[in-house]
Amino acid sequence: MKIGIVGATGYGGAELVRILKNHPHAEECILYSSSGQGNAYSETYPHMSGLVHQTLQPINMNTIKHEADVMFLATPPGVSSELTPQLAVAGIPVIDLSGDLRIQEPEVYEKWYKRTAAPEQTIEETVYGLSEINREHIKKAKLIANPGCFPTAVLLGLAPLVQNKLLDESFLIVDAKTGVSGAGRKASMGTHFSELNDNLKIYKVNEHQHTPEIEQLLKEWHPAMENITFSAHLVPMTRGIMATMYTQIKTNMSGDDLQSLYSEFYQDSYFVRVRPQGHFPATKEVWGSNFCDIGITIDERTNRVTVVSVIDNLMKGASGQAVQNLNIMNGWKEETGLTMTPIYP
Amino acid sequence: MKIGIVGATGYGGAELVRILKNHPHAEECILYSSSGQGNAYSETYPHMSGLVHQTLQPINMNTIKHEADVMFLATPPGVSSELTPQLAVAGIPVIDLSGDLRIQEPEVYEKWYKRTAAPEQTIEETVYGLSEINREHIKKAKLIANPGCFPTAVLLGLAPLVQNKLLDESFLIVDAKTGVSGAGRKASMGTHFSELNDNLKIYKVNEHQHTPEIEQLLKEWHPAMENITFSAHLVPMTRGIMATMYTQIKTNMSGDDLQSLYSEFYQDSYFVRVRPQGHFPATKEVWGSNFCDIGITIDERTNRVTVVSVIDNLMKGASGQAVQNLNIMNGWKEETGLTMTPIYP
Amino acid sequence: MKIGIVGATGYGGAELVRILKNHPHAEECILYSSSGQGNAYSETYPHMSGLVHQTLQPINMNTIKHEADVMFLATPPGVSSELTPQLAVAGIPVIDLSGDLRIQEPEVYEKWYKRTAAPEQTIEETVYGLSEINREHIKKAKLIANPGCFPTAVLLGLAPLVQNKLLDESFLIVDAKTGVSGAGRKASMGTHFSELNDNLKIYKVNEHQHTPEIEQLLKEWHPAMENITFSAHLVPMTRGIMATMYTQIKTNMSGDDLQSLYSEFYQDSYFVRVRPQGHFPATKEVWGSNFCDIGITIDERTNRVTVVSVIDNLMKGASGQAVQNLNIMNGWKEETGLTMTPIYP
Amino acid sequence: MKIGIVGATGYGGAELVRILKNHPHAEECILYSSSGQGNAYSETYPHMSGLVHQTLQPINMNTIKHEADVMFLATPPGVSSELTPQLAVAGIPVIDLSGDLRIQEPEVYEKWYKRTAAPEQTIEETVYGLSEINREHIKKAKLIANPGCFPTAVLLGLAPLVQNKLLDESFLIVDAKTGVSGAGRKASMGTHFSELNDNLKIYKVNEHQHTPEIEQLLKEWHPAMENITFSAHLVPMTRGIMATMYTQIKTNMSGDDLQSLYSEFYQDSYFVRVRPQGHFPATKEVWGSNFCDIGITIDERTNRVTVVSVIDNLMKGASGQAVQNLNIMNGWKEETGLTMTPIYP
Repeated sequence: MKIGIVGATGYGGAELVRILKNHPHAEECILYSSSGQGNAYSETYPHMSGLVHQTLQPINMNTIKHEADVMFLATPPGVSSELTPQLAVAGIPVIDLSGDLRIQEPEVYEKWYKRTAAPEQTIEETVYGLSEINREHIKKAKLIANPGCFPTAVLLGLAPLVQNKLLDESFLIVDAKTGVSGAGRKASMGTHFSELNDNLKIYKVNEHQHTPEIEQLLKEWHPAMENITFSAHLVPMTRGIMATMYTQIKTNMSGDDLQSLYSEFYQDSYFVRVRPQGHFPATKEVWGSNFCDIGITIDERTNRVTVVSVIDNLMKGASGQAVQNLNIMNGWKEETGLTMTPIYP
Repeated sequence: MKIGIVGATGYGGAELVRILKNHPHAEECILYSSSGQGNAYSETYPHMSGLVHQTLQPINMNTIKHEADVMFLATPPGVSSELTPQLAVAGIPVIDLSGDLRIQEPEVYEKWYKRTAAPEQTIEETVYGLSEINREHIKKAKLIANPGCFPTAVLLGLAPLVQNKLLDESFLIVDAKTGVSGAGRKASMGTHFSELNDNLKIYKVNEHQHTPEIEQLLKEWHPAMENITFSAHLVPMTRGIMATMYTQIKTNMSGDDLQSLYSEFYQDSYFVRVRPQGHFPATKEVWGSNFCDIGITIDERTNRVTVVSVIDNLMKGASGQAVQNLNIMNGWKEETGLTMTPIYP
Repeated sequence: MKIGIVGATGYGGAELVRILKNHPHAEECILYSSSGQGNAYSETYPHMSGLVHQTLQPINMNTIKHEADVMFLATPPGVSSELTPQLAVAGIPVIDLSGDLRIQEPEVYEKWYKRTAAPEQTIEETVYGLSEINREHIKKAKLIANPGCFPTAVLLGLAPLVQNKLLDESFLIVDAKTGVSGAGRKASMGTHFSELNDNLKIYKVNEHQHTPEIEQLLKEWHPAMENITFSAHLVPMTRGIMATMYTQIKTNMSGDDLQSLYSEFYQDSYFVRVRPQGHFPATKEVWGSNFCDIGITIDERTNRVTVVSVIDNLMKGASGQAVQNLNIMNGWKEETGLTMTPIYP
Repeated sequence: MKIGIVGATGYGGAELVRILKNHPHAEECILYSSSGQGNAYSETYPHMSGLVHQTLQPINMNTIKHEADVMFLATPPGVSSELTPQLAVAGIPVIDLSGDLRIQEPEVYEKWYKRTAAPEQTIEETVYGLSEINREHIKKAKLIANPGCFPTAVLLGLAPLVQNKLLDESFLIVDAKTGVSGAGRKASMGTHFSELNDNLKIYKVNEHQHTPEIEQLLKEWHPAMENITFSAHLVPMTRGIMATMYTQIKTNMSGDDLQSLYSEFYQDSYFVRVRPQGHFPATKEVWGSNFCDIGITIDERTNRVTVVSVIDNLMKGASGQAVQNLNIMNGWKEETGLTMTPIYP
């Protein structure tokens, strides 16, 4: 299979290149970029010297549709809204890593993203690619909206509670923390080393565009769910997301009950690892891999549940899950090309 | 004034030495340690070469009480419970940076700390040294329990809301994050560089011993307050605490109302800086200083308030506040010796 | 093939486990440890949850020799000196990652390591496992002394110059920098997060035990080589070694000449990547991989050559090269199981 | 005294603001910037909230010369070349932190800096502000070229050897390492967090513009000194420079001799701390202070000397030394306003 990557010079694109390099069904990768055409990819990313020999190709819709059998879009906001409809017409399956196609209601998209929504028809044809939950839809999909990094960690952490309607629908706090690579490769004051090192920041308080994405799924699973509180923090590390989630439980459940609920819910999901009672994952324990590790506990003093969910934001939070979706779409084993273990330390 | 520091080789002790080096009323510091007696302090801490010429002194209660006019205890758990009663008898004021004297109910202390509580009489004579709130009591105190690092950030962040009984007493989530120096100088797997660098951990979920300290004050201020949920995270940075707090507000308040409430509450407190609407502090913005910076906002979608409070855990969270209390006890200006600005970047 | 790993709970052992997990000829790994016998490996290393199901085995020489077809020793100093002779008698090939078997002269070993040397016969039977240089000897070897992390970077960086006798034999300065994982997993003040973060240290100046290992090879390649100056620095990062080497060149060579010399020298070495003129590798560009990347330049003002060589200390500097040697010993392709690309960022 | 700071929004400027905030002779600071005029300084640097109340002023030469009694220029390359002559005519003393005025030969400046040199007359009137060495000249100077960060560490580390003509003039290697704040506050790919964190880079090999500055002083002290080899490395930390220097000694000296030489050379220099035999400074041991700490040793195997010199690049390497020079120029005690101790950890 010939696989196109639009936006190959960003971090999401580079991670796709890394994964597909060792993917048994990736016959060839074509690397598209809005700049630097003709340059060797290894000039942009010297860590790929000797491993990736391609040069960067221009994003020309006339030729692009004859070159690739499937297209990953790892592009800045707004690009996918334009490219996807054209690729859809040309019959090329698309896995979109940007946020353009995730939100079903245009007005919600436009409120949070502050830009024009993608065409409605495109949105309608798009399947939300949360692999563990939407497998059956993904199998038949041509257009995939790959989930955001925070929503992946949050939704996998909450699905067993919400789908089983166990929590107080009006009480859900998500305190999320991320490494800096989630901000992409573009230099800015906000990602300047001296500003972030040995520092901890909160950002986009109550305004993060991943909020409606999370709420959309929660309400799909359980319409009584109310609006949530979501905060994002920038941690001085390169990779990793941890979502710490606090909710109130409606019924009487013990820690063991919770543990069983989660273990059973994910028993057929290779990439979700539920930790034993009293153990919580650290972000480094999934570093470089496609795992989502989850720890849960209940506090008897307050009857509140704390769920901790960690992922590598560039893997399960972006490119890893995108390849997992490629695998599902093609009927390949879900972990094909994704068997790399976490790297520790 | 001759000032004794017991536990001078820990990080809290070292920070006291740094502050008192430039404090106008610190005529002499005597550095006590349970090990290394006779060694030059600058062997333990070469950054003090040429600046601190003292050697380490043994902790001998017979002599210690004739040597110092006031005693800082920056000691491991359990030490202060033993030393403080003796120092009290000898009439020497004590500022205790350990957790030994903070909890009023022995059974609560013993449950969370899993060790024997200090003598009841000592506890009764002790004033909780949250400087901005307890100034009047501190002025007259002989024994000060210097607050924990997390409680300082949390309580200063919540005092205006709780003292004014504005929040839903049953809804309070505290998601706290700390740099590693809070764990002290003793080497352990949990503080090993390769285990923490580029990593984020949650620890002591629902079991952190600062929980009852926070609850004790909240209930003192507002008896209807219920138990809270408190989580601590270890961030790959050396100094800094951020407490992100989520609560539901009972009355109708705008962001401006909140802002005014906080600004007025702290208008006479030099070390608390309330940020303008929509601005939140980063930990580095108080690095090396005694400030506590606070940002607050309200989310109209949920009517929930988010409070962000940051401190330098070794300064306002330990030694800085300890010296602030020394100043208050002696009737000196509160910021005496504490005018160092944050260091950035 | 059944592969034993003695010292499986250290970082070198963990990296072997990670590599062999995806190695096509590693039928089974047996994980030996001096402590924690019976515990699941994933208790020590939760990042291997669900991936490694083995428990830790005791190091019992009576049984060990019937269990494994080849043995990796990733053990503290002195252990291999004891185990290797017994394994040799039992006919089990050994790849030793410790420093015990690297130094040929016992008195040199004892001077620098300050402990008793391994039995002379064992030393004599041992081949130094610098894969790219000693391939022919490694093929026939039963005992391999896997090179130290610094020597690997330094020797691969210098081999073309020294083997071709191009440099001034009396002028060689090696300024080496390493991440902290090279110090292993044992907690100590020297590897305490708060002591190392945002800090840079030099250590073992003129006393590092890798010095005689480097000199031994240099003099083997070119007997006129004199003693070198070697310094090691501890950099606040987890993985990575950079050796910056300064020498004076005897003949007239241009930068292009140098470039050609290196490119040709390593043209059949998959794992050594010589960078183009004027480009120098960063440590992150080999992170998690078995590559050694090299940049070279000559300064016309001084006729001095600067060579920069980077590796991942746990991969090419330890476990990666050990598996490369396993491959060579067994006649497998050198990169078998080692095709993971560097992870960036 | 009214003190002007041009370039107040850069890191050098911010450090000047921090120092002068507690300087007893700094009656008022005027903060000039090429952008953001009228904005409160604390918008740019929230860590100064409540401490610095000034707004940013435009750089208008007509008014600027009536406003300040002395001017610090913490400006990008080329700005000082233009401003200094005008300030000189107006009779305002200038302390220039940029590299514009440091190099005496215009053709050398133009070769290394690749831009037009400052007017010759300005250069002639300028004194090189290496405080410990040039005190007598600084006392009488009106224009000071404040030394570069690397040259400060290197020259203080080498002065005793070079001024006493003890080293082999043809053998000097300087391997320098710096934290990222030396690159300033302007965002770029080269200072992007994800590119630098957990990474180590070498840059400007044989091309760093601090090379001729170092050579100029070495040759002034000892005309037989030949060209040096200088390399700079970027270390994943915010502050700190370490220069590791390697040279061959001409005479027979013991480690004790060296130690005495250095201790005596710097016995009247408050800010230079020579470490005891066998001890070497780490960068964190001078963090936030104006100290330069030096360790020296001789290797009997090679008769080579290793000198390790560390500074905080923003303090002794820039703004700290600039204020030290201000003190010297005004006949104030050298450490006035600079008595802050290093902050550790």
